[in-house]
Amino acid sequence: MHSNTPDNRPQQDVSQKNSALIPQTAAFFSQHELPATITRVTWLDRVLVNKMLNVLGNPPLQIKLWDGQIASSACKNPLAVVSFYDRGALLKIIIDHELHWGELYCSGRVKFEGNMTSLIEAIAHAVQARGKMSFLRKAIQWFSQRRNSNSPDKARQNIHHHYDIGNEFYKLWLDREEMQYTCAYFPRENMTLEQAQQAKLYHICHKLQLKPGDTVVEAGCGWGGLAHFMVKHYGATVTAYNISQEQVKFARQRAAEEGLNDQLEFVLDDYRNIHGQYDVFVSVGMLEHVAVQDYQELGQIIKKCLKPEGIGLIHNIGRIVKQPMNPWIDKYIFPGAYPPTLSEMMQVFEPNELAVADIENLRLHYSKTLQIWIQRFEQNLPLISKMMDEKFIRAWGLYLQGSRAAFNLGKLQLFQVVFNHMQNNAIPRSRLHIYQQELGEKTPAEKFH
Amino acid sequence: MHSNTPDNRPQQDVSQKNSALIPQTAAFFSQHELPATITRVTWLDRVLVNKMLNVLGNPPLQIKLWDGQIASSACKNPLAVVSFYDRGALLKIIIDHELHWGELYCSGRVKFEGNMTSLIEAIAHAVQARGKMSFLRKAIQWFSQRRNSNSPDKARQNIHHHYDIGNEFYKLWLDREEMQYTCAYFPRENMTLEQAQQAKLYHICHKLQLKPGDTVVEAGCGWGGLAHFMVKHYGATVTAYNISQEQVKFARQRAAEEGLNDQLEFVLDDYRNIHGQYDVFVSVGMLEHVAVQDYQELGQIIKKCLKPEGIGLIHNIGRIVKQPMNPWIDKYIFPGAYPPTLSEMMQVFEPNELAVADIENLRLHYSKTLQIWIQRFEQNLPLISKMMDEKFIRAWGLYLQGSRAAFNLGKLQLFQVVFNHMQNNAIPRSRLHIYQQELGEKTPAEKFH
Repeated sequence: MHSNTPDNRPQQDVSQKNSALIPQTAAFFSQHELPATITRVTWLDRVLVNKMLNVLGNPPLQIKLWDGQIASSACKNPLAVVSFYDRGALLKIIIDHELHWGELYCSGRVKFEGNMTSLIEAIAHAVQARGKMSFLRKAIQWFSQRRNSNSPDKARQNIHHHYDIGNEFYKLWLDREEMQYTCAYFPRENMTLEQAQQAKLYHICHKLQLKPGDTVVEAGCGWGGLAHFMVKHYGATVTAYNISQEQVKFARQRAAEEGLNDQLEFVLDDYRNIHGQYDVFVSVGMLEHVAVQDYQELGQIIKKCLKPEGIGLIHNIGRIVKQPMNPWIDKYIFPGAYPPTLSEMMQVFEPNELAVADIENLRLHYSKTLQIWIQRFEQNLPLISKMMDEKFIRAWGLYLQGSRAAFNLGKLQLFQVVFNHMQNNAIPRSRLHIYQQELGEKTPAEKFH
Repeated sequence: MHSNTPDNRPQQDVSQKNSALIPQTAAFFSQHELPATITRVTWLDRVLVNKMLNVLGNPPLQIKLWDGQIASSACKNPLAVVSFYDRGALLKIIIDHELHWGELYCSGRVKFEGNMTSLIEAIAHAVQARGKMSFLRKAIQWFSQRRNSNSPDKARQNIHHHYDIGNEFYKLWLDREEMQYTCAYFPRENMTLEQAQQAKLYHICHKLQLKPGDTVVEAGCGWGGLAHFMVKHYGATVTAYNISQEQVKFARQRAAEEGLNDQLEFVLDDYRNIHGQYDVFVSVGMLEHVAVQDYQELGQIIKKCLKPEGIGLIHNIGRIVKQPMNPWIDKYIFPGAYPPTLSEMMQVFEPNELAVADIENLRLHYSKTLQIWIQRFEQNLPLISKMMDEKFIRAWGLYLQGSRAAFNLGKLQLFQVVFNHMQNNAIPRSRLHIYQQELGEKTPAEKFH
């Protein structure tokens, strides 16, 4: 299903195009018109439209109904036009837009023209200015706090749902070198995605003070990019755990081809089965897939597997304000995932006497990463549409754009947490060492280009 | 009571002497022998001594009783000799050493020869290896979690107790430039205390991206060192709040003498009365004096007083594992103080949509700071003993040494937290700017020497 190296896919470099996002996903499918329903538009439908816009804080948005007419009050400079193809769709959005928007958009019962990221941001700002939350949202929020633990079986299903949909698809829009499906690091303007992902990998290795001979355990290794990088550029020995079959298969094949098997082992297993002791523990983009009530157990595993003078790093999407996952994302994109607040994350560390040494918030770096992913995704729509159906593509476009809006709005954050055993006094004197290396080079990744 | 500049006190530079701590406090008072009680030492006293040592994990310690004889079992290379002058003292230590050690040591009913910091560390390691906590300690811990809020009146009393005991006393052992009674920053070996306190002030200003014309509000300003520094070296305008009369008097006098009154205002008031809006909020060493249940209110005040694109920084002593303050410290040194965990500290930020941008843990920098404070304190004992009574001096020596041990053991941490409004997208791209400035100079403070 997938090729052996990440390089034999269409070459394009769109990272320089930092212009406003072009909403091509919707346009790409504009030829697939759904038959309009024959129900007549009534005055009540128009009242409902304007009531809904009022509840949303009157964002700069035009609403078209199934008669093809604009039903919303006059709006100067609309960011977007949303078309409803039947009354049911309109009612569903009115009841809970966060839950139903994704479903209706993906099935084509609602259509969208304009800049979706900007529109989501405008609605969020308008709703916040109004300061109201629907009873239903509150109820969902309350209910969602009673989350179930992700058992190893459930975790495997959840991960399979998102990561095993085909490496070829991910290759079309992730960086070419290490297929990093996590936030890149753009310390300087105008870095390409490839440079910024390399800079991220260096940044992590600098924080971990990685050196030749270090033993590393990685929990949740994606396509093995970080593990590969640590072996290749630092001479470390890495044992990387992952429960995504497709990803592990890809990573193992690459390691074998490059003759790295002695130093690079990929284990198709749950992080709960990590054993042995290591100089470094690292986990990038996995904590989001661990339920909060399992954090303390994760910390126990880290405590056990980290040598007395070892260093650990967790990199994950998080939040400032505790909130359940968007219900549509939870259902269709990332089942069982949850971005925690720092106070929730402390359950990994504090009960296990793991001392937080350093936390960095890279929120806007994820917005920039997503911007480039979206550009590449949209430029590759002709290829992607040969692999995936229309519903999938609409969903994916919505997920990427919605995520970018969430990072821009501060609804999502990106935390990098460095930690060590509480009693470890062999910790670095300061963080100068991280930046000594990064400032010594023009960009950390340039040496590879 | 105090002089106008911090420079007319005995000049000494002990910061280079990084040798093991010399426990001069005890030796200084060795001529003040208490009359030994006439109670006979029995076999039961000796059994109790050895039982106590056993509970403490048999640290390398000799115990002398009131007959002048060593009562403990043979111990190779003892770190210290502790002498009990009556049976009551021995029993009190057995019941709860954390509570009674300070009282008995300060009153002279227990005497100590050796390296106190090392001994405290050795006992902590031994007790942890045993993994047991007395029922009484557990009960105290439970009870202590029901803490009362520090009302403005109570806060004033608490602060008066510690900070209004005489500026002349603090001048004898704090750094000469800015009288910083908080953790210094030693990014390089062999910095003097003065250099490291300047480096700390620069480090904070770099993190805050301070620039000329910025308006700053400071909550809890000590003797005004940071506020003074920000005005003098950055051209900022600072409004600094403090409820310690002695400190504010000192800070105001200095500002007046240097003609800085236009840009530097000291307000003798509680942080709860901060008003107006500022580019920067900063608080160094105050959070420890705020009760955890008041954190959310503190965050509300910060949220209100910080401009939309403002940056804030809180620097405070904290913990990894939630624990009440040592009862002796709470009673005699810092009434009402509490070092929080990061999860507790998040109550300042998360409910108020303040996004944590950066957390740095400077734990071992506080150990080094305390090491120099202790050296200067001990070298100035002849002068200090003319200002303070013996009980005070013993208590202060114990507090400084116990604190150093706690930082060495990881029982105390030092957090610097940088934050901004959750929706502020004008945040710096990375932390490079902090280190660009610090790496551009040999040591950040050298330009002033």
